Parts: sequence; structure tokens; C-alpha cells
Amino acid sequence: MTNYTDLNTSERILLGPGPSTAHPRVLRAMAQPLVGHLDPQFLKVMDETQELLRFVFQTENELTLPISATGSAGMEAALCNFIEPGDEVLIGVIGYFGERLCDMAARYGANVRKLEKPWGEVIDPAEIEAELKAKPAKIVAMVHAETSTGAWQPVEEISRIVHNYGGLFLLDCVTSLGGLPVKIDEWEVDIAYSAAQKCLSCPPGLAPLTINDRAREVMCKRKKPTSNWYLDLCLLDNYWGDVRTYHHTAPISTIFALREGLRLAYEEGLEARFKRHRKNAELLWAGFEAMGIELHVPVEIRLPTLTTPRIPDGVDDMLVRKRLLDEYNVEIAGGFSQLAGQVWRIGLMGYSSRRENVTLLLAALKEILNSV
Amino acid sequence: MTNYTDLNTSERILLGPGPSTAHPRVLRAMAQPLVGHLDPQFLKVMDETQELLRFVFQTENELTLPISATGSAGMEAALCNFIEPGDEVLIGVIGYFGERLCDMAARYGANVRKLEKPWGEVIDPAEIEAELKAKPAKIVAMVHAETSTGAWQPVEEISRIVHNYGGLFLLDCVTSLGGLPVKIDEWEVDIAYSAAQKCLSCPPGLAPLTINDRAREVMCKRKKPTSNWYLDLCLLDNYWGDVRTYHHTAPISTIFALREGLRLAYEEGLEARFKRHRKNAELLWAGFEAMGIELHVPVEIRLPTLTTPRIPDGVDDMLVRKRLLDEYNVEIAGGFSQLAGQVWRIGLMGYSSRRENVTLLLAALKEILNSV
Repeated sequence: MTNYTDLNTSERILLGPGPSTAHPRVLRAMAQPLVGHLDPQFLKVMDETQELLRFVFQTENELTLPISATGSAGMEAALCNFIEPGDEVLIGVIGYFGERLCDMAARYGANVRKLEKPWGEVIDPAEIEAELKAKPAKIVAMVHAETSTGAWQPVEEISRIVHNYGGLFLLDCVTSLGGLPVKIDEWEVDIAYSAAQKCLSCPPGLAPLTINDRAREVMCKRKKPTSNWYLDLCLLDNYWGDVRTYHHTAPISTIFALREGLRLAYEEGLEARFKRHRKNAELLWAGFEAMGIELHVPVEIRLPTLTTPRIPDGVDDMLVRKRLLDEYNVEIAGGFSQLAGQVWRIGLMGYSSRRENVTLLLAALKEILNSV
Repeated sequence: MTNYTDLNTSERILLGPGPSTAHPRVLRAMAQPLVGHLDPQFLKVMDETQELLRFVFQTENELTLPISATGSAGMEAALCNFIEPGDEVLIGVIGYFGERLCDMAARYGANVRKLEKPWGEVIDPAEIEAELKAKPAKIVAMVHAETSTGAWQPVEEISRIVHNYGGLFLLDCVTSLGGLPVKIDEWEVDIAYSAAQKCLSCPPGLAPLTINDRAREVMCKRKKPTSNWYLDLCLLDNYWGDVRTYHHTAPISTIFALREGLRLAYEEGLEARFKRHRKNAELLWAGFEAMGIELHVPVEIRLPTLTTPRIPDGVDDMLVRKRLLDEYNVEIAGGFSQLAGQVWRIGLMGYSSRRENVTLLLAALKEILNSV
């Protein structure tokens, strides 16, 4: 017989692009004994989770719920419920997750048009306007906070333009929700999703999603239901809404966890939370500048939640990351695709965004860089 | 400000159709601090989880992994990767989950043929043979253990017939895996899936899935990738296999939990585990018979994991269940659709399958039935 030991993983400090370190209160809530998914006590937990999601999304949208799968499934739900074969979809691609939006949209039969920028830049509202003037689109999709590059896409003006041309505005808020302002109602974002394991300090496994009435109407007027049964928002709406029609068995424990992660955000307050993320990011940036390490994204569009320092010439990317992990228990990530070997990706999200983590990371990096 | 209190749900004894009570060791493993999804320590956890899944599925199938969503997504993955528009699919419908297979298969463009039986019965191999003789099918799908009725579908002979007619045999093992024999290799089941929250005593959120080389070949020869990106097994295979190509962020904590739930099954041994489920179910059945309560499913095809006693005449279904929950913290479920108001559904799965639970449930039911 094989000897499968007790789980004995190290206590890592997660400063990569996600998952971030889960808050201890979140882990404790998750370990609460299960209740049934139709237990009145669990229905109350569902209601509160939806209320708290509306709080972090800054929205009154009724259809606001966590998709029972990871962030990528949130992305897919945001597309598959609205796209019908032959629909025009315009996608802003400023990094890997924009590419993924294109791949998914095409699978559902959309005519995908890409508006691409080099990794590290963002899209100008005028470019969107020019594209829509040339040919309208049913959906315009963008990534608010590009986890692959560290760029922060301004979206308010783009949302206005998309609506002027009669489209739906879809926003990926995976690395922004809970770490920097995401104002769904004020910006009139029609469809948005995120992930639990980034700035909400929860384990991966849930994808918060919100859609407004304009998007809901488009969804309800489809000619055929989406091919994707698990992510069909009409069915999910009946389960999470007043009807409570059984769809799938909700992932009880991760919803316990999400409620706790959201409650932490509620207690801290959004403004204070955003300030904390900003302040710790600025400490990190100052530290890199003092070390003579350049940051890939200009400060005006640099995310506070994900920083991409350029790897100094002659430094072995993999070796540095391995030593950080093995010797300091600190995880950061490398770049990939266009940025492979050129940048590191450092996340300061949720519970990971703490002064002691910044100080430790900078000091550990100095020790490693000075010893090679 | 709303006062969102500490999570304060009751300690329920879950004897419904799932989730079953999570084993305390599973909850403790789940609360382990997160590690990154590409951390070498996590890759080892993934490998061990796959090995242990092969153990409970009794298979050598390389492509054996947990889908990062609940059991329903396992069902969808089992269909969407193999169905192309226009494919013939024959589905045995002996309850609600057979119906769901039909709904999902049709969404992916299959020509669905149903072979239906009244809820509580099972399908005879000769009926499958007659159907396939009349018209072959690319896939024949069945439910091994129907959670909506308590019927246990024999499948070994059916698998042989399906292969004689050149089809793939797909089996839903949601309420069987870990509670009664599921012999994927010996029975030559081509595609199978289950759910973590039934006989494996884990929280809901993962769907174990296994496919053999015959099914893999069909999948790899598709004309077009499946529309479902999140459940695309070609991509998942690259992530869970040796290549480790990033797909989605694995739900670290629920995989910690699943590994522990599987480890418990490994320690107990499959034969001992099946015997325990059988013995406790027989105790329950004897108790009902002593109370003069009839069981809906004949003993020859009755599941040890899910029992459906017929509600005695004049007894208020909802009131009994409410009193069990409120006064004894015991959850059982009612019937639905064809069986609504006619049966209760009582699960004795995984950690819930314990003598003390049977004794408590029977005694509590007696107290309630005698007091009305």
C-alpha cells in the first residue's frame, strides 16, 4: 500500500497573481460543518452573500451571485449567456485574459474582432469608438485589471461609448474587485465577473458575477438557451432568486468562505480597503525604484494589486523565484507569453496586501540578488 | 450598517440525498493555509489525488481528475467533450438525473433518444439491445444510482451490449462512487463521473471524472473543440497531465479536502467500505419494515446509499421533515416530480453511513409519527 501522509504543505506567503493568502477567518468559516444546500440556514447565507457581493460590486443589480466554479467559469458565464451564433463581439486585448475572452467567445459562435495592444499598455476610448463606428458590436468586452501585465484599463468613458453605439459593456474584474474601485452601477457596466481568490482573500472556487437589467433582457430574449447548462444564468437565477428551483448543489463550504471574505471587506470599508492596497503597492514600487529595478507599466495605468517589475539583466528568473519559495516561503510568479522571462508578477491583494509582506519581499529579493 | 454576524449554522446530521456530512478530517484538511496552484507541493497533491481517484474508480485510466465544479459540471463534461452536433445519443431515464442528461445532451446538438422507465424501476439489458438494433448510438448514457428514486441500475451486461453495437458507455456514478462497487475497468465503462459530496464525504465543489482510451480517442478526433471552454478535457488534460499548461486556477482547498476524503476511503479499503454502507442500509430497511413503512424500491435493485420509504397515508411530508430538522438537527429530503409527496429520500453515504445515525433517525421518526 502507498503511504499517503497527512497533508503537510508549507505556510506560504502568496504574493503571486493569485490565489492570494486566504484570511484566517475565511479558512475558519470554510471549516464549519456542512449544512444542506436547501437548509433554511443556508438560504440565509446565500441571501447575505448576494447582498455583500452587491456591496463590493457597488451595484443594486438583482442578478448578482457567485458562479460555482473558478474565475474562468465566471468569464465563460459572462459570454455564453449573451452570445448567439453570428453575433458581433469586440474584445479589447491588452494581455492573456483578453485572448482568453476571444477564444471563449469564438467557441460560442461569435464573430470576434480583436483590438490589440502590446502587453503593458491599455486601450484608448477613441480606438473603441473608431471600431464601433466602422461596425457596431452586440458586446464589447474588456479586462479591467490585466493579471498578465499589471495594466489598469480605464473604463468609464468606454462604457459610455459602447452604449452610444447600442452595445453591452462586459468587464473582467478578476484582479480589481475588492482591491480598487469597481463601480458597476455608476459606470453602467452591463456584465461583470470576478474571482474569489484575488482581492477577496478567499480560496479559489467561486466567481462573483453581476448583470444589470439591460443584459438580463438580452439574455431572456435569446432564440435558444445557451449550450452551457451549468452556467445558464436563467437556471441559476431561479436557484439563487426567490423561486429556489434546484439546479446544482451549491458548494456550501466555499460559500461560507466567500461570505466571510466579503464580510471582512464590509467591515474594513471599500475606501479604506482601496487605500490600503494603494499604500502597500506604493511602498513596493518605491522599494523597486530604490533597487534600480524598473517597473514595466507606467504609473498612470499601473495596478495597485499587481506589479510587474522588469527582471534585471543577467538575473536568472526561475532561480530567484525558486529561492524565494524554498528559502523564504514567498511565492511570486514569472511573466508569460510576450513577457516570459522579462517581468515578475507580484500580487498584493486582499489579505496579502500587508506592510510586512512588502518589507519581507524586498529584503528577501535584495539578499538573493546580492548573493548571485 | 447591516450587522452580518459570525457564521453560526447548526451542526446538522445530513441524511438527505447529499451533501452528506463531511468527515472532520476532511474539514481540517480543507482549512489548511493555501499554497499556489503551481507550487511543487500542490502539484504533488494533484498527483496523489489522481492516484486515489483511480483507486476508488478501480481504474488505470490516465485521464482521471476532479472537475473544478460540482457534480452537474461532471455530467456536462462527460457529455460536451464527446457529442458533436447530429450525434445519436441513447439515454436511459429512470429518474430526474436521466432527464438532466437528456437536457444537456440536446443543448450540445445531440439527437437524443430516451429509454424511459417509471421512477423506481431500472432498465433491462434487452431493452437497450432492442434500441441499438433499431438504430445505433454513438453514446449510451445511464445513471448507476438514481438519487431521485433510490434505484440501482445493473450495468455490466449493458456495457457489453453497447460495445457490441460500437457505442461509448457513459455512466453517472454520483451516488455510487465510494459507497458501492464502481468497477470502471472491469465493466469497461468508457466515461464516468461522480461528485465529492456524496459517498466521499467531502464538501460539494468537485466532480471526479474518468475516461478510458477509447473515449479519449473519440474526443481527440472531434472536428471542432467543444463550445465549453471550462470543461474542455483536452485543455484539462494538459493541466493535470505532465504538461501542466495553465488552464484555470485549481480550487486548492477543495482539492485538499478531496485528497483527504479519498485517503479515508483508501485507509478503510473499498470492500470494508461497501460492507459498512450495506450493513447500515439494512439496519435502516429493517427499521422501516418494523414500523410498517413500505420501501419504494424492491430489495433486488435497492441502493444501499439512498433509501426511499413511502410516506404513510395521512402523514404530512413537510411537517415531518421540518420537525426532524428543527428538533433533531437531522436532514432528510422529500421526493420530487413523479415522487413528490410520496417518498422520503434518505441518504446513508460516506461519513453519514454510521449506526448511530440510523438509530437516531428511526427513533426520531417514531417520536414524530407518534405525536401527530
